[in-house]
Amino acid sequence: MFTRLLCVNDYEQHAKSVLPKAVYDYYRSGANDQETLADNIAAFSRWKLYPRMLQNVAEIDLSTSVLGQRVSMPICVGATAMQCMAHPDGELATVRACCSLKTGMMLSSWATSSIEEVAAAAPDALRWLQLYIYKDREVTKQLVQRAERMGYKAIFVTVDTPYLGNRFDDVRNRFKLPPQLRMKNFETNDLAFSPKEDFGDNSGLAAYVAKAIDPSISWEDIKWLRGLTTLPIVAKGILRGDDAKEAVKHGLDGILVSNHGARQLDGVPATIDALPDVVAAVEGKVEVFLDGGVRKGTDVLKALALGAKAVFVGRPVIWGLALQGEKGVQDVLEMLKEEFQLAMALSGCQNVKVIDKTLVRNPLAISRI
Amino acid sequence: MFTRLLCVNDYEQHAKSVLPKAVYDYYRSGANDQETLADNIAAFSRWKLYPRMLQNVAEIDLSTSVLGQRVSMPICVGATAMQCMAHPDGELATVRACCSLKTGMMLSSWATSSIEEVAAAAPDALRWLQLYIYKDREVTKQLVQRAERMGYKAIFVTVDTPYLGNRFDDVRNRFKLPPQLRMKNFETNDLAFSPKEDFGDNSGLAAYVAKAIDPSISWEDIKWLRGLTTLPIVAKGILRGDDAKEAVKHGLDGILVSNHGARQLDGVPATIDALPDVVAAVEGKVEVFLDGGVRKGTDVLKALALGAKAVFVGRPVIWGLALQGEKGVQDVLEMLKEEFQLAMALSGCQNVKVIDKTLVRNPLAISRI
Amino acid sequence: MFTRLLCVNDYEQHAKSVLPKAVYDYYRSGANDQETLADNIAAFSRWKLYPRMLQNVAEIDLSTSVLGQRVSMPICVGATAMQCMAHPDGELATVRACCSLKTGMMLSSWATSSIEEVAAAAPDALRWLQLYIYKDREVTKQLVQRAERMGYKAIFVTVDTPYLGNRFDDVRNRFKLPPQLRMKNFETNDLAFSPKEDFGDNSGLAAYVAKAIDPSISWEDIKWLRGLTTLPIVAKGILRGDDAKEAVKHGLDGILVSNHGARQLDGVPATIDALPDVVAAVEGKVEVFLDGGVRKGTDVLKALALGAKAVFVGRPVIWGLALQGEKGVQDVLEMLKEEFQLAMALSGCQNVKVIDKTLVRNPLAISRI
Amino acid sequence: MFTRLLCVNDYEQHAKSVLPKAVYDYYRSGANDQETLADNIAAFSRWKLYPRMLQNVAEIDLSTSVLGQRVSMPICVGATAMQCMAHPDGELATVRACCSLKTGMMLSSWATSSIEEVAAAAPDALRWLQLYIYKDREVTKQLVQRAERMGYKAIFVTVDTPYLGNRFDDVRNRFKLPPQLRMKNFETNDLAFSPKEDFGDNSGLAAYVAKAIDPSISWEDIKWLRGLTTLPIVAKGILRGDDAKEAVKHGLDGILVSNHGARQLDGVPATIDALPDVVAAVEGKVEVFLDGGVRKGTDVLKALALGAKAVFVGRPVIWGLALQGEKGVQDVLEMLKEEFQLAMALSGCQNVKVIDKTLVRNPLAISRI
Repeated sequence: MFTRLLCVNDYEQHAKSVLPKAVYDYYRSGANDQETLADNIAAFSRWKLYPRMLQNVAEIDLSTSVLGQRVSMPICVGATAMQCMAHPDGELATVRACCSLKTGMMLSSWATSSIEEVAAAAPDALRWLQLYIYKDREVTKQLVQRAERMGYKAIFVTVDTPYLGNRFDDVRNRFKLPPQLRMKNFETNDLAFSPKEDFGDNSGLAAYVAKAIDPSISWEDIKWLRGLTTLPIVAKGILRGDDAKEAVKHGLDGILVSNHGARQLDGVPATIDALPDVVAAVEGKVEVFLDGGVRKGTDVLKALALGAKAVFVGRPVIWGLALQGEKGVQDVLEMLKEEFQLAMALSGCQNVKVIDKTLVRNPLAISRI
Repeated sequence: MFTRLLCVNDYEQHAKSVLPKAVYDYYRSGANDQETLADNIAAFSRWKLYPRMLQNVAEIDLSTSVLGQRVSMPICVGATAMQCMAHPDGELATVRACCSLKTGMMLSSWATSSIEEVAAAAPDALRWLQLYIYKDREVTKQLVQRAERMGYKAIFVTVDTPYLGNRFDDVRNRFKLPPQLRMKNFETNDLAFSPKEDFGDNSGLAAYVAKAIDPSISWEDIKWLRGLTTLPIVAKGILRGDDAKEAVKHGLDGILVSNHGARQLDGVPATIDALPDVVAAVEGKVEVFLDGGVRKGTDVLKALALGAKAVFVGRPVIWGLALQGEKGVQDVLEMLKEEFQLAMALSGCQNVKVIDKTLVRNPLAISRI
Repeated sequence: MFTRLLCVNDYEQHAKSVLPKAVYDYYRSGANDQETLADNIAAFSRWKLYPRMLQNVAEIDLSTSVLGQRVSMPICVGATAMQCMAHPDGELATVRACCSLKTGMMLSSWATSSIEEVAAAAPDALRWLQLYIYKDREVTKQLVQRAERMGYKAIFVTVDTPYLGNRFDDVRNRFKLPPQLRMKNFETNDLAFSPKEDFGDNSGLAAYVAKAIDPSISWEDIKWLRGLTTLPIVAKGILRGDDAKEAVKHGLDGILVSNHGARQLDGVPATIDALPDVVAAVEGKVEVFLDGGVRKGTDVLKALALGAKAVFVGRPVIWGLALQGEKGVQDVLEMLKEEFQLAMALSGCQNVKVIDKTLVRNPLAISRI
Repeated sequence: MFTRLLCVNDYEQHAKSVLPKAVYDYYRSGANDQETLADNIAAFSRWKLYPRMLQNVAEIDLSTSVLGQRVSMPICVGATAMQCMAHPDGELATVRACCSLKTGMMLSSWATSSIEEVAAAAPDALRWLQLYIYKDREVTKQLVQRAERMGYKAIFVTVDTPYLGNRFDDVRNRFKLPPQLRMKNFETNDLAFSPKEDFGDNSGLAAYVAKAIDPSISWEDIKWLRGLTTLPIVAKGILRGDDAKEAVKHGLDGILVSNHGARQLDGVPATIDALPDVVAAVEGKVEVFLDGGVRKGTDVLKALALGAKAVFVGRPVIWGLALQGEKGVQDVLEMLKEEFQLAMALSGCQNVKVIDKTLVRNPLAISRI
């Protein structure tokens, strides 16, 4: 018997009941005591909306652009790893859903479908590549070049994962991929996180990162990456204004304010609380995005009011995917789109350009913005 | 066995036990996660009262005026829709109770008794009409003219409902009117929200609004309405100072600070927290009212201290109505009156004119007022 | 089997188990939703102590003076009514315990032992009279004169009770005195709140107040009272700085910052939060006291750090009285004394004169003091 | 069956199940209502981390110095009394674990192993002596001289315990040492807190302190102590800036911001909230340390960001000790080390010198720092 799914929380509850425990745990968990995981959600509630009335909202135009590409709404799909654990169609289902919604998908380096397979599944979809900088720079370079070749429109380089955050559930579950899956962008078993490899007795993924990902990356590597491609590059995982300024100075094209879904350093601020400083710091020179805790249309509105150009959703997409593959992702995105549309209408916003910071206030943050 | 009903909460608990679930849910619910629903109540508690002593409170004069009409107290009955769901006597019971208490009743456009029936039931009662602006301006105009003709004393035009808020309970209950009822102000089945009509599989009322109510309304329509009648007009559903200023500029006679009982956009501030800005913005040029979360005499006192001329109560009236029809409404209003009278006495207020803003403080709001 | 009673809360739990429900309810209750009742306690916890070290605290002198009379500690017994409900010895037990502790007792006008009986029970005890101003000024005058005659050292005139607060438990219990008791300071059955009288179907005490106590009292009556006696007079129930200034202007000798144990107007601030403004307002011209929520030695220290000369405890005394009469009161007072002494020692205070406002801070109150 | 122990809380839960109740209670308890005990933990969560990205964290150098001595990390072991109650190897296990981790151990005056035994167990370990100033100054002097002789590198003189805090559990448990143990630094039964002595019917330790420890200590005694030894001396238990300044003026070498594990005066601030003022007050002239509530690597990072040179952990060590003696302590310290290392890496800190105050923010504390 299916209860009606009216909000993202309903999807999560339902997905929890159909996913294997270790898989659900992997997607749901945050690092350590998960304070930031809870705060990513709670912080949105602390920001109050001050809607404008009588603005003629018969027609609402949700569309915007992300790094120069049009999207039907400022809600895009963020990178989440290994989506074939959630549903056999994995990333292919997700990209097709994005295509039908006319929004963009950020593909994880750690996808269980390859850059090429995802491109082939939805050639017209707006796609971006999330990039980890591997110790092996040749591997890294090839990821960028393959993305460029297959029509991906930007690189979102993760800057917050020199090591993997400590996620207790993954340690207890000795998390690894199920037997039939691997990270499809890599050839060798070790880089592909193949379940045939021995990744030790704790979180297999933490071991994988320690082995493969480069903890030495610095702004020098950003320069190197900048020289590697003409695609727009976005720094994913920035929480400070000064880091955002630095990214602008290094010629990056955007900042994704992110705490990696609260999966890296526990105790960092909710992304919505970190956003205003970053927006102020870049002085409009590049686009600023946000992920983390977006579960409702009003969350999107609050993020845009505080200066985000668009938001990325991760877990909500996984819950939809787990329930019904492509259709599930489509349903979740449609639902968020309708929620955001209603939030705009009820706030008097005919289009995203009129969303301004007078729409939100937070008594505890007043001294900051 | 009847437990003694000592406060509005007691009435609600009791009403819950006698009303059909879908009806109770309809009245009780707020939009989405109901954050604002809870905050409407909680915010009153954050404002602390600083009573004045030794003011000779042997006689307390609660009376005041609303838009030029005398009322026995600054507690009026706000518009709640379809009251015959709560009790067969519905709006007729409510208006009679208001009449006997010498306070005013705001009749909903969506009443299950007509403008004329309500006038006939209590010709001497102070009555106002809550107005939705319909796509069909002729229908809208007639509502105003009928109200004018039947001696209603003002129009409260709802400005916060271009679309209906998303109320999960109503969606799950596929909310519609019971078979014997309809919105009595309208002739056609579709405008009358007749249960014989097909309003789809979700909230019937949301479908009704999408079909009938005009989402394009703007300040231009306020001008049109202003030209339509000499009755005082109040904008119902304002939460921002600049919107309030705009209303004044358009010749309106009052502002009702309201979040529609937390049923429209979830995440907006509690009305008591939004009130001070609106009061400051209108600079005394028009009267400011408040609804939302008023459950106790001290709530009324706090609202008046922050500048409201009067408050409107919605759900408390429904709970009284559900329990005992006219007598129930009367009891609830009497109870609130006594509570407010005691609150004034214990604060050293002989009449409503001496209620000033030194009576309240809120550490979290200090920087705002 | 007796569990060890280590703090006031232990006493209350135990007293609850031995007192008749309606009696326990009477003492415990606050008005309406009891928000202030909870806040009186919670507010103390929001104020943090900043102790000074290395001050030689081998000897701690707790003694101080109250209105010119020495007391062994700045913890006095506040007026609570009808103590014979708690224990047959009632006020006589309390005054004897105060005498042995060398602290003062404020006798309620509504005592179940008379002014004279209490004086006789402990002629050497420091005693004050709490005074309600009755409609019958002759009755009022006699109370003052009898107190003066019997060696009471001050009048604490209650200014916050023109009507009784609405205490739901007392309404439900139809609170009245048990058959064998009456207010001993009055001759006539009606003034004595005799259980033989008919005080109606709700709270008998509320009816009593409505009948007997004068709601018209104003600063004029304070002038009259001032002219009536040379005893020091303290205004009991002040929460605002301007009211405190007014009291000073009228020649009063002290201010008792009190919300009547949260039993009058619900929603007023905790007394510890109201104290700083009052202290600032009187500019050292009169003594300022506090009651409400004092349950621990650190509470006393915080009140003194914020400028109180002494505090009064009410309910804790009742719980001791209920358990073991005079010995119970003595035990509770000894316990509070030891707690306060330890708090002083651990804060580096050799005597009460060195307690200053640097000992406390409250982030939410910073803008106020 | 052993569940995997992934954080300090896991250790505590497990230790609770293996320790005798009175022993677990002794270690766990705080004073009175234990408000500060809870706040020591909660306050860390209120401070949010603002990590820096792209700093090349391939190599993290955790090492630092404490009072001129190198340690492998800024996490040292604070003094906790009578460790042989937790495990037969007691302090000897702890010092060996510290030695293998290359961090320092502060030995309690109240150890169940003597200054000499601990030195012998780990001659190469960095050791400090926590000192209570006894009424008998000769006893006190000998403690200092024995520590000096045995190669202890500093004296941490406790300044917050003129009397013992009131810990309800210890009163109820009539806490005393088990039969086979005594405080090994003292010869006489009374000073050794021998269970053969009669320490009364409440907390034996409170009685012990009242008898033996000097409540008269003042800055004069600090002068005396300063003259007694050339070892660095740290004031342990300071919570105010002015006290810290005074310590500097008296020639002390460091300040340990501590509330004695919330075991002395309940209601004092969490140590992390008290730290910024003390750091500001000493103006870099001496080293500032912190203990209280440190349970995670991020706690250490926050403390260092606010100016602490190193932190001390108490209870976590006891839980490890209780479970597996030396190995348990080693495991806990290793775990904290790894957590801190990861926290540094994820915050972009290559070494402790680059940890600065821009890494933390607390909206409620903004006005203070």
